Amino acid sequence: MTINCIFVENFKFKLMGSKVNVNWSGNMAFEADVNNYKIKLDAHPEVGGQNTGPTPKPLTLVSLGGCTGMDVISILKKMRVEPSDFNIEVDGELTEEHPKYYHKIHIKYSFKGDNLPMEKLEKAVTLSQDRYCGVSELLRGKAEITHEIVIED
Amino acid sequence: MTINCIFVENFKFKLMGSKVNVNWSGNMAFEADVNNYKIKLDAHPEVGGQNTGPTPKPLTLVSLGGCTGMDVISILKKMRVEPSDFNIEVDGELTEEHPKYYHKIHIKYSFKGDNLPMEKLEKAVTLSQDRYCGVSELLRGKAEITHEIVIED
Repeated sequence: MTINCIFVENFKFKLMGSKVNVNWSGNMAFEADVNNYKIKLDAHPEVGGQNTGPTPKPLTLVSLGGCTGMDVISILKKMRVEPSDFNIEVDGELTEEHPKYYHKIHIKYSFKGDNLPMEKLEKAVTLSQDRYCGVSELLRGKAEITHEIVIED
Repeated sequence: MTINCIFVENFKFKLMGSKVNVNWSGNMAFEADVNNYKIKLDAHPEVGGQNTGPTPKPLTLVSLGGCTGMDVISILKKMRVEPSDFNIEVDGELTEEHPKYYHKIHIKYSFKGDNLPMEKLEKAVTLSQDRYCGVSELLRGKAEITHEIVIED
């Protein structure tokens, strides 16, 4: 019984939120722990870093691309559409003044595959952007998010 | 002259924005490329993933923790305050309805070190939150961000 309760509690926590840890490793370097996966972060040498990992700000764009990408691929699977390749490019434009944040974000969804139905790709992307992708919803508070869909040869 | 121009262009792009790539690797797995650093992403088994990397949503919290952490450590350096240890815990609470996004985020800044001056730690954190951290500014559009500062023994 106790084990069941712990499982339910952990599962509830995973549904209701997330906790991450970002630990300083000296100079400008940090190591993040996300559910036991480690990600190194560092700054560029111009600002005192040593390039031992990506800078933190673009990880917001990675979070966005991964979130909407997983939505789209799982919606397409339900529609029995499976591309042979799927790539998401996320481009963020920063404000000129501090604090510099992405005020414009463009997502390019690129698909490869035989006879891919564009209307289903559009529907999957629209469902993600309008209904499911929590990162898009969060960032839309301050950023204008646009997208395009491309079927590549 | 050409080489100088390319350098200036690249540097300008780095200042003005970021581009990341998130590429599907089959099933629910993706691999992100951020300035040539690779980050694997995957979903939990409950939703068809195989746990080969972190889920994308908490990366927004990693981005926030790293961004404010680098601000704080570099401001403290200018104040000639160097902690022996520095850790940032970021806790995000999701909305109950779709799209599920972090509507409440709490940042816990924990420091270790001898005779750390709390007023300087507070000043560094406030400067990051109010003036420099672009990820905080971006997320504040939809999320209420709170913080606490702890000096640990």
